[in-house]
Amino acid sequence: MNVDARLAELGIVLPQAAAPVASYVPVVVQGGMAYVSGQLPFIDGALVTGRLGEDVSLDKGTEAARACGLMILAQLQAALGSLDRVERIVKLGAFVSSTLEFTDQPKIANGASELMAEVFGDAGRHARSAVGVPVLPLNAAVEVDAIVAVKPD
Amino acid sequence: MNVDARLAELGIVLPQAAAPVASYVPVVVQGGMAYVSGQLPFIDGALVTGRLGEDVSLDKGTEAARACGLMILAQLQAALGSLDRVERIVKLGAFVSSTLEFTDQPKIANGASELMAEVFGDAGRHARSAVGVPVLPLNAAVEVDAIVAVKPD
Amino acid sequence: MNVDARLAELGIVLPQAAAPVASYVPVVVQGGMAYVSGQLPFIDGALVTGRLGEDVSLDKGTEAARACGLMILAQLQAALGSLDRVERIVKLGAFVSSTLEFTDQPKIANGASELMAEVFGDAGRHARSAVGVPVLPLNAAVEVDAIVAVKPD
Repeated sequence: MNVDARLAELGIVLPQAAAPVASYVPVVVQGGMAYVSGQLPFIDGALVTGRLGEDVSLDKGTEAARACGLMILAQLQAALGSLDRVERIVKLGAFVSSTLEFTDQPKIANGASELMAEVFGDAGRHARSAVGVPVLPLNAAVEVDAIVAVKPD
Repeated sequence: MNVDARLAELGIVLPQAAAPVASYVPVVVQGGMAYVSGQLPFIDGALVTGRLGEDVSLDKGTEAARACGLMILAQLQAALGSLDRVERIVKLGAFVSSTLEFTDQPKIANGASELMAEVFGDAGRHARSAVGVPVLPLNAAVEVDAIVAVKPD
Repeated sequence: MNVDARLAELGIVLPQAAAPVASYVPVVVQGGMAYVSGQLPFIDGALVTGRLGEDVSLDKGTEAARACGLMILAQLQAALGSLDRVERIVKLGAFVSSTLEFTDQPKIANGASELMAEVFGDAGRHARSAVGVPVLPLNAAVEVDAIVAVKPD
């Protein structure tokens, strides 16, 4: 099954690929790898803002991380032409806006990680780092970047 | 000398490779590189928790970073079959749980960096970034991830 | 035009490549990629210290990020022999020392991003992540690391 069919089966509609908020590009493909810029969580077009442990619940944060993952997919589709060119999700970097007491960054980051497994199966199983940060661009709750192996054009 | 002999000479016993705390894998090998997930510091099976500048001393923090490095080696050994397949430690990313006043992240990260030099010699000399973070998963004191060049199987 | 001529045209003088503040190396070249360690912002030899939203202005922070970018170029020149060996700036990672209220990390990181576009044109267009951190080594205001594709020697 191709990835578009799999997305449809899962009922996933990708968002419009967001323009970078500054002087860089969303994806660079080099040496068989796509480097995806840190993506912020948009749900129905609205940025999920706030901080875990303060004004963002565990469920909302996990949903936000999944939204970052969906935006990574949207950026890859825009850059590669098709998600069928994804060979392997190699590494995700998850930055979670956190109070000093919030230590469930892995649960939050799972929102993005489980999306990759759902969409790509074994090819979606990736290495990951997840850390707390005090604040993110535009007060986003989560930011996720990615390294993805791609098949030749 | 092979790496196992070198570890024995240094008196280093690797820990059991820890299971990921969430939906991802410890190591992905792709394009000649092993991407190692962020590893937390376990000493004698117990996680080193707390924050530098607060309740974790410089010595304890450095020891914790070394423990992250040992876990990186344990994960590589489990994924590659043998540490003799390590060609070069390419990059370490060190995240140090820090108060606003603690600015010795490089000294802490040296715990992992010096381990790599001890074990691999010149092949252990790596690029690195080290930053402060307010909090880490499970309240860990340090988290370190890695990119490692590997020889073909 | 070669990169040295382009730097001269832009009136850019690279700083002396700074020695690592600890046990690692500034650049590792592996598999066609140069991995550049996190660089701190030196202006006229003095480190730019402090925190955005507190004692570092938007302009000063942006200038600091540009200084990190200049140090990345200085490190690449020292490691590669010539900046003409740069094929593509692939990814920048920007860590901005930030108060809980400061959310303009992308504007700060642009200091480094726009430098790469000025110097390398299209080859300077890169993927990026930018996040807030509570504190950085030596109390630096900004730290930037890089992944850069290089042409064979």
